[in-house]
Amino acid sequence: MRPAFLVLAAASLSATIVASSRAQEDAAPIFGITLPPGYREWKVISVAHEAGKLNDLRAILGNDIAYKAAREGQLPYPDGSIVARVAWSYEPLPESAEAFGQAQSFVAGKPTNVQFMVKDSTKYASTGGWGFAQFDNNKPAGEAVHNACFACHAIAKGRDLVFNRYAP
Amino acid sequence: MRPAFLVLAAASLSATIVASSRAQEDAAPIFGITLPPGYREWKVISVAHEAGKLNDLRAILGNDIAYKAAREGQLPYPDGSIVARVAWSYEPLPESAEAFGQAQSFVAGKPTNVQFMVKDSTKYASTGGWGFAQFDNNKPAGEAVHNACFACHAIAKGRDLVFNRYAP
Repeated sequence: MRPAFLVLAAASLSATIVASSRAQEDAAPIFGITLPPGYREWKVISVAHEAGKLNDLRAILGNDIAYKAAREGQLPYPDGSIVARVAWSYEPLPESAEAFGQAQSFVAGKPTNVQFMVKDSTKYASTGGWGFAQFDNNKPAGEAVHNACFACHAIAKGRDLVFNRYAP
Repeated sequence: MRPAFLVLAAASLSATIVASSRAQEDAAPIFGITLPPGYREWKVISVAHEAGKLNDLRAILGNDIAYKAAREGQLPYPDGSIVARVAWSYEPLPESAEAFGQAQSFVAGKPTNVQFMVKDSTKYASTGGWGFAQFDNNKPAGEAVHNACFACHAIAKGRDLVFNRYAP
């Protein structure tokens, strides 16, 4: 082999290793889910306010499969469904507070984190058919976070683990 | 003319009058806006919680023109923009209250009403380039309601009368 080719092959091998390690870094632990492209523009299933410590405003969005299932009240959700929970800090709208003399209009501030439920009844059979993922600033959260998802969502087992219903 | 034709012509005229009067009934007073088709599936500009008397959760949606302008921070909004404000009653999620021992997760309940802002800088020049409309159960609200829109939205004149910013 000519030296130039060897260098190229080594470079290519090294690039492959980097890409593979990056893919691993981009994927949420346990469930191996990566950030679904375009999720911010998915349709609205519902909206919510989580008070208490988190104190955020959230939109629950669905890819086309999840949105249709939610709208039609189809349970369980079919394979391929992805539900996204986007959240932002809960902030008073200053103009409203001025106009009404009290804070009564609350709006979305900075993004907090994004969570996903991905339906694959075979791959995720041990967690009710759902894989779970949380991303903070586009990076997957740690393993401890992901260990807590299924246990908490089990509260909504009568609705295939999805807390929110479609808001008509 | 033959009597049969006369009857047909009369029936047709009557149908036209009914259709025209129905169109009028479907349109919001003052601004003449009808319910934009498909608005429930538009993309999310932001979400909000209006506390106080209304106490609702809301999604602020945009047609493609409004969504793009909001996302890019383009002010004023271009003609053709339509911003939709969908709202639902603010309800505690029972499963969460059970799990946490207190109501801390609030979700969308029944729909309340839907409001729209339609940008047409010529047609609506006297109200900042925006036409306003509110629909309760798909029927336009009365004139008094529509008289109040512009005065209140003027609070947000620094943002082309749109209260909400794009939530990233």
